[in-house]
Amino acid sequence: MIYLTRKMEFSAAHFYYNPEWSEEQNQRVFGKCANRHGHGHNYILEVTVAGTPDPQTGMVLDLAELKQLLEREITDRFDHRHLNFEVPELAGCQPTTENLAVTIWRLLAPKIRQGRLHRVRLYESPDLFVDCYGDTQ
Amino acid sequence: MIYLTRKMEFSAAHFYYNPEWSEEQNQRVFGKCANRHGHGHNYILEVTVAGTPDPQTGMVLDLAELKQLLEREITDRFDHRHLNFEVPELAGCQPTTENLAVTIWRLLAPKIRQGRLHRVRLYESPDLFVDCYGDTQ
Amino acid sequence: MIYLTRKMEFSAAHFYYNPEWSEEQNQRVFGKCANRHGHGHNYILEVTVAGTPDPQTGMVLDLAELKQLLEREITDRFDHRHLNFEVPELAGCQPTTENLAVTIWRLLAPKIRQGRLHRVRLYESPDLFVDCYGDTQ
Amino acid sequence: MIYLTRKMEFSAAHFYYNPEWSEEQNQRVFGKCANRHGHGHNYILEVTVAGTPDPQTGMVLDLAELKQLLEREITDRFDHRHLNFEVPELAGCQPTTENLAVTIWRLLAPKIRQGRLHRVRLYESPDLFVDCYGDTQ
Amino acid sequence: MIYLTRKMEFSAAHFYYNPEWSEEQNQRVFGKCANRHGHGHNYILEVTVAGTPDPQTGMVLDLAELKQLLEREITDRFDHRHLNFEVPELAGCQPTTENLAVTIWRLLAPKIRQGRLHRVRLYESPDLFVDCYGDTQ
Amino acid sequence: MIYLTRKMEFSAAHFYYNPEWSEEQNQRVFGKCANRHGHGHNYILEVTVAGTPDPQTGMVLDLAELKQLLEREITDRFDHRHLNFEVPELAGCQPTTENLAVTIWRLLAPKIRQGRLHRVRLYESPDLFVDCYGDTQ
Repeated sequence: MIYLTRKMEFSAAHFYYNPEWSEEQNQRVFGKCANRHGHGHNYILEVTVAGTPDPQTGMVLDLAELKQLLEREITDRFDHRHLNFEVPELAGCQPTTENLAVTIWRLLAPKIRQGRLHRVRLYESPDLFVDCYGDTQ
Repeated sequence: MIYLTRKMEFSAAHFYYNPEWSEEQNQRVFGKCANRHGHGHNYILEVTVAGTPDPQTGMVLDLAELKQLLEREITDRFDHRHLNFEVPELAGCQPTTENLAVTIWRLLAPKIRQGRLHRVRLYESPDLFVDCYGDTQ
Repeated sequence: MIYLTRKMEFSAAHFYYNPEWSEEQNQRVFGKCANRHGHGHNYILEVTVAGTPDPQTGMVLDLAELKQLLEREITDRFDHRHLNFEVPELAGCQPTTENLAVTIWRLLAPKIRQGRLHRVRLYESPDLFVDCYGDTQ
Repeated sequence: MIYLTRKMEFSAAHFYYNPEWSEEQNQRVFGKCANRHGHGHNYILEVTVAGTPDPQTGMVLDLAELKQLLEREITDRFDHRHLNFEVPELAGCQPTTENLAVTIWRLLAPKIRQGRLHRVRLYESPDLFVDCYGDTQ
Repeated sequence: MIYLTRKMEFSAAHFYYNPEWSEEQNQRVFGKCANRHGHGHNYILEVTVAGTPDPQTGMVLDLAELKQLLEREITDRFDHRHLNFEVPELAGCQPTTENLAVTIWRLLAPKIRQGRLHRVRLYESPDLFVDCYGDTQ
Repeated sequence: MIYLTRKMEFSAAHFYYNPEWSEEQNQRVFGKCANRHGHGHNYILEVTVAGTPDPQTGMVLDLAELKQLLEREITDRFDHRHLNFEVPELAGCQPTTENLAVTIWRLLAPKIRQGRLHRVRLYESPDLFVDCYGDTQ
């Protein structure tokens, strides 16, 4: 079993706000992230697929196909978007790095046709990232 | 003469839009950046000060003082902000990396008390950055 | 289950020396690291916490609380310190990256209140790092 | 149990070509990588060894010995080489990152004398890497 | 005057060999680089353009146009190529980082239509790079 | 004219202390750096040499010779050393990044035989570095 990881980037805006809370509670819990004008990040996404290299190609999966999948499911949906307003999959939950990673897992897992999705790692900044392994761990 | 550079980060949202143009022209010129919901970046700022090391301290400037200046002038003004709506210094101009670097130069240059501001380098992403040297070059 | 990782840095001095050995044996085993004037590193620490995002906040833990914990337990104890002389928790063992990571695990594990500590990764340099998972692996 | 990782680099040339296929099929499957003049990469290799720190040295293994092993088995074999023509261990298989990582695992695993080889991570570029854990996962 | 820099990558193979020298002299001067099977690198190219931001767009140049130029002149010519055999512009000279940077300058300088080319920086590896400013410095 | 830059690392310990000042003044000016047990850094040094590529080799200078020079003048003198106690060239001045860069310039400039030393850049950490151009700027 080999684990292949592809890295990509997208830029998006977001803020954190719980409408059931007062302005004060939002400020206290979310701090500067509660600013409803929004701020943003260069997200870095690492997608890891586990599989056995094909004897003919020596590859776990077709990298051109993976690139197309990532452009269709990730770039087109998240890049240069505001996560609070433009991504239906995130409606009703805070667009935190945690929830964004889970959403990306759910979008990609059923579409990986060679091998299986092993991990989604998402960096919000060089100093903060989350890993999601679906329900396998 | 020694050039000392301090690196820092801030996160902000922005979009590009020229209200004198049609929607079509904005799309054509600015592409995905014209999305008025906004997107965002982890900006990386490098501030370079030129000076002669003080014989007593061996330093071009007091790094604690520089840190306070950068927090007051840069972090408080730009971090977790939407550049189109919350930064008066950028009013009336596109919040491009170019214009943002010039604005940062103008904010910092008169406030550097030891040495003189030599360069402002601003990364919008790891693959795109601008340098501003004021009017000296 | 989501794994959230926070990265931070600290600078410290250390050397390796076994007082039960001769000078020659220390030189042979530890090489340049046996220089008792000491040398130092910019250590990079990655702390990973495993947990389930809170439905209200979308977060595995309170990042401001984590930051305070890391400043109190890590920065105040290790930053700008000499590991051989100023850290009681390391007394009696070589201040290797391995032992330092285990020490950090023991300091942090009982203090993480939301989720549980999953991994401590410590870089001594960009080319050398260790991972500690406590007794779970 | 502690996991220690050492990073190193080597530069090599390669191309992908299946002699049982037509030129067209090679182009379709391998794209630009099928160019038989070859291209190349700065490979980055991370070797992770799992073990228990020695009480006397505080170390999982002797780093000087590991360095010699990596120079003898990896640098001398792969650095400044053309993987299609000069590495007998890769004969008969595509020199993909996947196959190269498996080959490196097989070369190193039996030669690690303190601790055991846990993971081989190989970056072909900053955006593409594979992990090999032998047959343990 | 603002200096805007765009970073990009390409992968290529090369070797150093002077046909007027004996095999021994080639080995002595070029070392492992004289291996005529070739080796390769992930080159990183930084292209810096100097100009004045356009008042309407706030930009030194049209980034989409720059991207097209770089793909046409750099990616199509150098990426996944063997520099000794497939790049006519390098015929008759060693494909060193120095000569490659000069060649890239000559290809790009006359084609920059907004602003002027200020610097070509080319990394052969993270530890070795060259800067070319044309004949201006 | 081409500018070639070579990057290397060394690890060292240091502290800042002015013996003509009281303990209180040292603390006020140097903060945590005044801790006389010392702390340390992974210094990253970039040495830039300006020259014209040799027509026969295509190179500004002999990289093997440069490597030997850097090992003899820099690694042997600074690596795994305590800058306050073991480097005569730094005696009588604070071992700040500024003074260390000037010292490195003075050590290397007269020894570069092909081309001329153009710049010494020294990183004390990823967020703080200084540039020294000798007396040329």
